[in-house]
Amino acid sequence: MDIGFVGLGIMGSAMATNLLKAGFRVTVWNRSADKYAPLVDLGAIVAGSPRAVAASSDVVIAMMANPTAVLSVRDGEEGIVAGLLPGSGYLDMSTVDVKTSLESARLTHGKGALFLEAPVAGSRKPAEDATLTIMAAGDRELYDNTQPALEKMGKKILFLGDTGHAARMKLANNLVMGGVLTALCEGIALASGCGLDTAQLLEVLDSGAVSNPMFRLKGPQIAANENFPTAFPLKHMQKDLRLALQLAEEVGQPLFATATINELYKKALAEGLGDADFAAVSRVIKSAAGNCA
Amino acid sequence: MDIGFVGLGIMGSAMATNLLKAGFRVTVWNRSADKYAPLVDLGAIVAGSPRAVAASSDVVIAMMANPTAVLSVRDGEEGIVAGLLPGSGYLDMSTVDVKTSLESARLTHGKGALFLEAPVAGSRKPAEDATLTIMAAGDRELYDNTQPALEKMGKKILFLGDTGHAARMKLANNLVMGGVLTALCEGIALASGCGLDTAQLLEVLDSGAVSNPMFRLKGPQIAANENFPTAFPLKHMQKDLRLALQLAEEVGQPLFATATINELYKKALAEGLGDADFAAVSRVIKSAAGNCA
Amino acid sequence: MDIGFVGLGIMGSAMATNLLKAGFRVTVWNRSADKYAPLVDLGAIVAGSPRAVAASSDVVIAMMANPTAVLSVRDGEEGIVAGLLPGSGYLDMSTVDVKTSLESARLTHGKGALFLEAPVAGSRKPAEDATLTIMAAGDRELYDNTQPALEKMGKKILFLGDTGHAARMKLANNLVMGGVLTALCEGIALASGCGLDTAQLLEVLDSGAVSNPMFRLKGPQIAANENFPTAFPLKHMQKDLRLALQLAEEVGQPLFATATINELYKKALAEGLGDADFAAVSRVIKSAAGNCA
Amino acid sequence: MDIGFVGLGIMGSAMATNLLKAGFRVTVWNRSADKYAPLVDLGAIVAGSPRAVAASSDVVIAMMANPTAVLSVRDGEEGIVAGLLPGSGYLDMSTVDVKTSLESARLTHGKGALFLEAPVAGSRKPAEDATLTIMAAGDRELYDNTQPALEKMGKKILFLGDTGHAARMKLANNLVMGGVLTALCEGIALASGCGLDTAQLLEVLDSGAVSNPMFRLKGPQIAANENFPTAFPLKHMQKDLRLALQLAEEVGQPLFATATINELYKKALAEGLGDADFAAVSRVIKSAAGNCA
Repeated sequence: MDIGFVGLGIMGSAMATNLLKAGFRVTVWNRSADKYAPLVDLGAIVAGSPRAVAASSDVVIAMMANPTAVLSVRDGEEGIVAGLLPGSGYLDMSTVDVKTSLESARLTHGKGALFLEAPVAGSRKPAEDATLTIMAAGDRELYDNTQPALEKMGKKILFLGDTGHAARMKLANNLVMGGVLTALCEGIALASGCGLDTAQLLEVLDSGAVSNPMFRLKGPQIAANENFPTAFPLKHMQKDLRLALQLAEEVGQPLFATATINELYKKALAEGLGDADFAAVSRVIKSAAGNCA
Repeated sequence: MDIGFVGLGIMGSAMATNLLKAGFRVTVWNRSADKYAPLVDLGAIVAGSPRAVAASSDVVIAMMANPTAVLSVRDGEEGIVAGLLPGSGYLDMSTVDVKTSLESARLTHGKGALFLEAPVAGSRKPAEDATLTIMAAGDRELYDNTQPALEKMGKKILFLGDTGHAARMKLANNLVMGGVLTALCEGIALASGCGLDTAQLLEVLDSGAVSNPMFRLKGPQIAANENFPTAFPLKHMQKDLRLALQLAEEVGQPLFATATINELYKKALAEGLGDADFAAVSRVIKSAAGNCA
Repeated sequence: MDIGFVGLGIMGSAMATNLLKAGFRVTVWNRSADKYAPLVDLGAIVAGSPRAVAASSDVVIAMMANPTAVLSVRDGEEGIVAGLLPGSGYLDMSTVDVKTSLESARLTHGKGALFLEAPVAGSRKPAEDATLTIMAAGDRELYDNTQPALEKMGKKILFLGDTGHAARMKLANNLVMGGVLTALCEGIALASGCGLDTAQLLEVLDSGAVSNPMFRLKGPQIAANENFPTAFPLKHMQKDLRLALQLAEEVGQPLFATATINELYKKALAEGLGDADFAAVSRVIKSAAGNCA
Repeated sequence: MDIGFVGLGIMGSAMATNLLKAGFRVTVWNRSADKYAPLVDLGAIVAGSPRAVAASSDVVIAMMANPTAVLSVRDGEEGIVAGLLPGSGYLDMSTVDVKTSLESARLTHGKGALFLEAPVAGSRKPAEDATLTIMAAGDRELYDNTQPALEKMGKKILFLGDTGHAARMKLANNLVMGGVLTALCEGIALASGCGLDTAQLLEVLDSGAVSNPMFRLKGPQIAANENFPTAFPLKHMQKDLRLALQLAEEVGQPLFATATINELYKKALAEGLGDADFAAVSRVIKSAAGNCA
C-alpha cells in the first residue's frame, strides 16, 4: 500500500515519520517546503501538489489544522480530489465539522474512491509515540484496508459508523471535558471561598474515584489563579459546546448542565479569554468577592 | 497509646482490625454485641459503654453512620464525653455536618481534652486495605499525636485546619464528583440521542485526559440504562449539593453549574430515585424522546 | 398611493379591509380565491398573480404565514419581485428570519425599488381593530412614505433601523415573553407544591408591580393544569429562544437564564408538547412529586 | 373594637392614620416618641409600652421593619405577648419568616389569644391610599373579626390558610418578580448587544401581552444603565430567592430557572450591589463586551 501524506505540521510530520519508519512508501506534500528534509532522510518522496500526491498513492492522508485548510488542499485543480484514482482512498485525519466531512465524502465518491474521516485525540507527544486515539467514520472497507497504517499512528482505533459520526463523537467527548473541568473550577472556587487549602482539595480528589490526568495537570494552575499555557483554546471549547447543544436540539435532547456551562464559557469569551486555555473559564467562576474565610 | 474504638460497622470493624494487627491496645464498644468476636480474637478488650471506652483510652475513635448515631454515643451519662479524661483525645471519623463537629469540639474542650474531626473518603475495600483518605481538622496536637494510628488506617492523611474544615472539604469534593458524573451523563445522552455507540464514547473518554475510575465503573451502567447498585445514595448527593450551595452563598460565591446540577438531582428525587445510586441522575437527563438517529 | 396586498389569511384580510375602509385603492391576490368576495365588496381589485399586483401598485404589501410562504409569492416568474417597478416599494409584514429579509432587500434593490420588513405583534383582534404593533426596518424613505397606510393597520408603529432589526427585535421580545411565562410557571409550581392556593397567588400578582394581561389570560389555565388553546405554539417559542441564544453568541452576550429556560422548552418538546401553546412548558416545570402540603 | 398599633414607621403611621380616620379607637406605641404628634391630633392614645398597648386593646397590630424588630416588641416583660388578654388578638403585619410567625402564634395561643400573620404588598403610597394587598394567614376567626379594620388599610385582602402561608406566598410572589425582572434584563442585554434601540424594545413590550408597571418603571433605568433608587434591596431579593429554593427543596419541586436566577443575584451581591435596587442585577447580566452592532 502506497501512502500519500498532505500536511506536515507538528502532528502530520510525526505521523508521517511513524509510517516511514514502519516501512511504508510515503509521498508527501506541504504548503511550505521547509518541512520536507527530515522525512526525505527517512525515504519520503516529495510531490508537486496535493493532486500529485493523490495520483501516486493507494491512500492519501490529510492532516490539516482546520476546515478552511482542508478545503485548500482538497478542492481546485491541484487539489487531492482532482488526483484521486478510482478504487483509491482519501483519509482525512483533520478535525472538521460534519458538513465538511459529508462534502468530502460526496466529492470522493464522485471519483469512484472511498472516504474516511478519522480525527484524532491527543497532541504532539502521542503523535510521536504513535499512541493517538483515532476516531474513524465513513467507508468501512477503507477502514479495514488502512488498519496496518492506522496501527502505526494510534493505540486506540475505533470505527464509529457513517461519515459525520467522528465529528459528533468529538463533540460528545469535548462536552464531557468541558463539564468535568467546570466541576473542578466550581469545587476550587468553593474551597477557596471558605478558606480551605485548594492544594489539599486536589489531593483529596486525586485519591478518589474521579482522579484523572486533567485534574493533575490543570488543577494546580487553576487553584493558583495562574496564567494557563494554551493547550486547547477556550474559544474552541465554547464553539464545541455550542455545536454540541445544536446537535442535542436537533435530536430533542435537553442538556441543562451543558447549557449553563456554555454560558460560563461565553462569559469568559466576553471577557477576552478566547485565546487562553479552556481552563481559564475558572476566571469567571471565581467570584471577585469570594475570599472570606 | 491506648486506643478506644466506638462503632464496629463495616468500616469501623475493618479499621479497628488494622489497628489491632499493628499492635495497638484497643478497647471497643458497639451497640450490638455480635461484632465483637473477630476483634477479640485479635486481642481487643470489650468495654461496657462508650463512656467506659473513653475512660480507659488515651484516644477514643468513633466511626458512626450519621450525625444522629454520633450523638447517641457522644452524649448522655454513658456517652464518650462523660468518660473523657483531661489530656486525652476524641477523634470522630464519622461523616458529620459542621455544626455537629463544632459542638463535639466544644464538649470535648469542656473536659480538658482534644478534638479532631477526621471523616474518610473510601468504602469497605480501602478500609480493609488501610488505603482510606483521611481528612482531619481540629486540634493539631491531637493530629500529630495520633499519626502512628492514622497511618495504619489510611494512605492519604491530611490536616485541613480548624474544626469544620473537614466537613467543608467533603462538600467541595462531592460537588466535584456530582459535576463530573453529570457531565458524563449529558455526554452519554447526546451520544445516544444522535445514534453514536455509547460504549465507544466511554472508550474515547478513557483514552483521554479525563480518564478516571468512576467513568470506568459507572459509565457502562449509565450507557446501558441499567439499575445501579447503590454505592452512594442519590439523596445524599443532593443533600451535599444543597449544603455546598448554602456554604457558597455564605461566602458570596456564585456556582452556576452546581446550582443547575442540584436541580437535576432534585428532579431525580422527585421521581423517586432518592435511594438509588447517585448515578441514577442519568434517568432524568436522558430525554424520553432522545433516541432518534 | 395605490396599494397591493398579497396574502389574505386571517391577518391579511383584516389588514386589507382596514386599508379599503380608509379609502385606499387596493389590488389583492391570494393563493385560494375564496377570500376575495368580502374585499371586492369593499372595492378591492383582484389581480392574477403576485407579479401583477406589484406591477399595478406603488407599494405592495405581503402578509404570509412563514418564510417558505414568503418565498412562494416573492420569487419566480410570477412573483412580486418580477413585477416591481423602479421607485416602487415592497413591504413584507410577514414574520421571517434575518436572512430571508436580507435576501428580499437585495432582490428588491436589484429592481430599483425600496424594501421594508415590518412584522407585527398582535393577532386577529388587533388586526381587525387596527391596533397592531408594527416593527419596521429597512429603507427609511419607504417607511416615511407608507405612514398613512401603516397608521390604518397599527397603533404603535416603530422604525428600528437596518433590514434585519425587526426580526431581531421580535427575538428579544419573545425572549422576554418566554422568561416572564417561565417565572410564572415556577411561582405556581412552588405555591402548588407547598399547599398554597394558586388562584390566590394570581390575585396577589395581579395586585402588584408585574400585573400583566398574559398572567390574567394564561395564569388560571396553568394553575389548573388544563389544556391550553394554542395561541403561540411551544415549538415556535423554542425556536425563537434558540435563535435569540444564537444571536447573543454572535454578539458575545451570555444569557444564563434564557439558556436554562430554553432547555425547559426543549424538555417540553421532547415530551411531545410542540404543538401546544407555549404556556404548556408548565407541564415539565411542575414536578410529579411536588404536591405535598 | 379597640385597636392597638405598635410600630409607627412610614408604613405603620399611614396605616394607623387610616384607622383613626375611619373612627376606630387606636392606642399606639413607637420606639421613638417623635412619631406620635400627628396621630394624637387624630385622636390616638399613647401607651407606655407594647405590653400596655396589648393590655388595652381588643386587637393589637404590629408593623415592624424585620423579624429582629418584631422580637423586640413581641418578647420580654414589656412586650406585646406579656399584655395579651384571653380572647384578644395579635395581628402581625410585618414581613417575617415562617419560623418567626409560627413562634408568634405559639406564644399568642399560650395566652389564650388569637394570631394572624398579615404581611402586605405595596409601599408608602398604597399604605396612605389604603390600597395595600394584605395576605393573612393563621386564625380564621381573627381574620373575620378584623375585616372592618383590614378594609380601611387594604384593597385586596386574602386569607391564605394556616400560619406560615402568608410568608410562603410572599416568597412565591417575589420569585415571580425576580424572574420577570431578569427576563427583562436579558432581553435588554440582547437588544443592546446587537445594536437595537432598547427604548424601542420597551415600547414593543409595553404594547404587548406582558406589559406591566415594573417594566415601565424600571425598564428605562435598566436600558440606560443608570443608578437605581432602591425600592427593594437586591440583597433582600436574593434572600427571598434562596428561601424560595429551600422551600421548593422541602416539597420536592425543582426550579431550574429560579436556581439560575438566584446565581445571577449572588453574582450581583458578590460585586457589591446588595444595597442597590434588585434591578441592579442587570449590571451582571449585561456583558462587558456585549456592545458590538
